[in-house]
Amino acid sequence: MVNIAVLGYGTVGSGVVEVIRTNSESINKNAGHDIRIKYVLDLRDFPGDPVEEILVHDFDVILKDPEVKIVVEVMGGVEPAYTFVKKSLLAGKSVCTSNKELVAKHGPELLEIARQKDLNFLFEASVGGGIPIIRPLNSSLTADEILEITGILNGTTNYILSQMSAEGREFDEALKTAQELGYAERNPEADVEGYDACRKIAILSSLAFGDHVDYEEIYTEGISKITAADIAYAKQMGYAVKLLASSKREDENYYAMVAPFLVPPTHPLFAVNDVFNAIFVKGNVFGDVMFYGSGAGKLPTASAVVSDVVDATKHLHCNIMSFWSSRKLELTKVDKATRRFFVRVRGSADANRDKVRALYGDVDFVEAEGFSDECGFVTPAMTEADFHSKYESTEGTLNRIRLL
Amino acid sequence: MVNIAVLGYGTVGSGVVEVIRTNSESINKNAGHDIRIKYVLDLRDFPGDPVEEILVHDFDVILKDPEVKIVVEVMGGVEPAYTFVKKSLLAGKSVCTSNKELVAKHGPELLEIARQKDLNFLFEASVGGGIPIIRPLNSSLTADEILEITGILNGTTNYILSQMSAEGREFDEALKTAQELGYAERNPEADVEGYDACRKIAILSSLAFGDHVDYEEIYTEGISKITAADIAYAKQMGYAVKLLASSKREDENYYAMVAPFLVPPTHPLFAVNDVFNAIFVKGNVFGDVMFYGSGAGKLPTASAVVSDVVDATKHLHCNIMSFWSSRKLELTKVDKATRRFFVRVRGSADANRDKVRALYGDVDFVEAEGFSDECGFVTPAMTEADFHSKYESTEGTLNRIRLL
Repeated sequence: MVNIAVLGYGTVGSGVVEVIRTNSESINKNAGHDIRIKYVLDLRDFPGDPVEEILVHDFDVILKDPEVKIVVEVMGGVEPAYTFVKKSLLAGKSVCTSNKELVAKHGPELLEIARQKDLNFLFEASVGGGIPIIRPLNSSLTADEILEITGILNGTTNYILSQMSAEGREFDEALKTAQELGYAERNPEADVEGYDACRKIAILSSLAFGDHVDYEEIYTEGISKITAADIAYAKQMGYAVKLLASSKREDENYYAMVAPFLVPPTHPLFAVNDVFNAIFVKGNVFGDVMFYGSGAGKLPTASAVVSDVVDATKHLHCNIMSFWSSRKLELTKVDKATRRFFVRVRGSADANRDKVRALYGDVDFVEAEGFSDECGFVTPAMTEADFHSKYESTEGTLNRIRLL
Repeated sequence: MVNIAVLGYGTVGSGVVEVIRTNSESINKNAGHDIRIKYVLDLRDFPGDPVEEILVHDFDVILKDPEVKIVVEVMGGVEPAYTFVKKSLLAGKSVCTSNKELVAKHGPELLEIARQKDLNFLFEASVGGGIPIIRPLNSSLTADEILEITGILNGTTNYILSQMSAEGREFDEALKTAQELGYAERNPEADVEGYDACRKIAILSSLAFGDHVDYEEIYTEGISKITAADIAYAKQMGYAVKLLASSKREDENYYAMVAPFLVPPTHPLFAVNDVFNAIFVKGNVFGDVMFYGSGAGKLPTASAVVSDVVDATKHLHCNIMSFWSSRKLELTKVDKATRRFFVRVRGSADANRDKVRALYGDVDFVEAEGFSDECGFVTPAMTEADFHSKYESTEGTLNRIRLL
């Protein structure tokens, strides 16, 4: 019997309790021990709820109980989660968390404490919800140098972009639908401006490259400026618009970025729609792999947390996570990255041809049905710095989107 | 330092040597030890090859060397692989293999020996080449009851079907191209008749359901009867034709099958083309996930083998694989499975309407450009037994393909 405590009885926490109760037989078989939820910590009361009898309001009850071997932190936010997790590890308890803010900010320190104490600090659910990605990076893709990780890591924005594409809607309308369906928060900023995806790619990049990637240093651009016209042009050219979180290694340069991209139909991320997430990984030996699934939601996220509990139970006194050092990985400035860009400008192709070709060379123009008095084109490959100086000096520009 | 021996210096074996030499720095870091290839076993000599100095022809040299902690079996075939692997485990050496015949036939016995001796018998490369799927099933998807595994598990057939679809070719032509490109063997039977996929789904199903699925009991149908007309009709209806290997649990019934299917565009397997493989898994909690990548090839397969070597090195005296019992899983007869079928018949829709509707109810007919004097239709959902009795009693039938 292994006793665990769940910190936080919100969406994910109640999902964890539900999953452990529903699948107890197979979970206990996989773990090799019976897993018992001894405490649930929450400030609130839940009269009539099955957890009522194991609910505690004081974290110290859990901390001081030597029977609790694993602490499940699903409160979210940096504090008090950080304090509770650190104290738990120092008290000899392994920790499983779904908290991306906590992992992105304090991952290296918490991993190091776990390592020193032969415990585990696991966080499969912090990225990609129910998609296994942390554990595969840690223990499956270990024969390779990882060259690239590019993911659709935020279901809210992927749903909004899929809606805009399927229905020809503008961003505000699609956001409203997403909010009505519960796919977007009332304050949607963390999702639509890319902050959520940014923390997640920081975690994946740190794990892949072995040094700490500071999420505050990742160039991040959201989808709130994407319009129905942008998407109509993309479709016309056979592309899909996706919010991608990406990091790449090119020789000794490391790039990381969150931004909307045009994705070609030949890329496996092209067909990832609605609230689904996917993570594409390139290695120097295995080539391309992709992991696809439900990137959020109560039960998929809870499933990932419980898979960590199973792993922590199987490895109670044996540290299994790769080291990711607290040394900061120096990211190369995005300015230096080279790629192609799609640009929309006011006026017809004819009116723009000379001006645009003088700047970008012999580009082809596209026009999209329903959007008159404007046109679009794709630049040749150039550095971000070079492109932006040209783009900002061009009159009548409407928008620009990077090409994958 | 951990010493390993590689049995077999063919395609995969030379890939393993290459990967360990190319990525030694990161592999040793991930493994926590320096991995050294002490022996390569092959009957042949390789004068001038870097392995010349560590080449041995006698397996007993490896077996009797207590320094060898991990044996990598990449010879293929059941014998002498089985004898060598069993002896290695009994002598206290962990084994990593890419050999699907060996695992499908002797998996439970070899896993049990490894478990009793606190060793590991690992076989990530036996299914899906460079795609991590064995380890995720074993240690990531552990909070769920697995309800379904459906995979495109054979790159040769997926390449042939993709070619037929893209170029409108007949099977024989596409097979010839695949052979010219080295994607198909001169004797292509194991691939095109589905035997390769059959062994792989047997392994995945055994792991997912915990009892041994005998591959000889899996209904298996290949792609050699698929014609350009079938594919033209499928495209017309918006489907892709894929060779799927699938197993499902419905209450206490377990179904397993390998056969060509029509896959709808909403399914994530729809867009998996060319030599790529993908495995779709449904759990009762995480929902749907899919793993995508290179399902074969020297380096992707070698990458998977080496990831097993890393894991075996990290767990030298600690068994990490789930138990999969030698008790045989009783599969429900395919006859009882319910699904829809696409049927092609000779003659126009008008000529067939009454006869077909009398058998199948009010179905819609399709005609595909370039294929005159025939038509197609999709049946309602019915059992395989019911369908086949009707199909066999219908005159002028040309082919039938199941719908996913």
